[in-house]
Amino acid sequence: MYVILVYDIQVDRIDPVRIYLKKFLNWTQNSVFEGDLTLSEIEEIKSNLANLIDQEKDSLIIYEVRDKALINIQLIGKTKSESSNII
Amino acid sequence: MYVILVYDIQVDRIDPVRIYLKKFLNWTQNSVFEGDLTLSEIEEIKSNLANLIDQEKDSLIIYEVRDKALINIQLIGKTKSESSNII
Repeated sequence: MYVILVYDIQVDRIDPVRIYLKKFLNWTQNSVFEGDLTLSEIEEIKSNLANLIDQEKDSLIIYEVRDKALINIQLIGKTKSESSNII
Repeated sequence: MYVILVYDIQVDRIDPVRIYLKKFLNWTQNSVFEGDLTLSEIEEIKSNLANLIDQEKDSLIIYEVRDKALINIQLIGKTKSESSNII
């Protein structure tokens, strides 16, 4: 499955979430990760993220499509710089 | 087309972008809009957003799929509150 994961997480919890997601996905924008995952990886990530965030205050949305070829992706403006990928 | 639009825009330019996007799409997370658009609406939005942002500093990604039924959407944590939709 191709996954786009977007998040709105309060600053004190954000680094653990990013460090965790970088094991599985590419960080494509400040609050966006993307990549191919198996169904079992998606389940694992959902379960672990639910423990890393405050479910009353933080929000994560996971968009899944069967194949990246089903999505047209267009970027306007700057691409994510490598330096900003460092946590 | 079903569109997911994510942005990373510096704070002094963010309100005009949100006000503009709310005419076309639903604001589903702090930096995420979603909704159904025609191809001509997508072209209009891309063109207008390119003028509202600083292309050296800001970033917008537009994901398009033919039909919302092709996407599985899962939310973890809080839903976007109505009050935070007010600009």
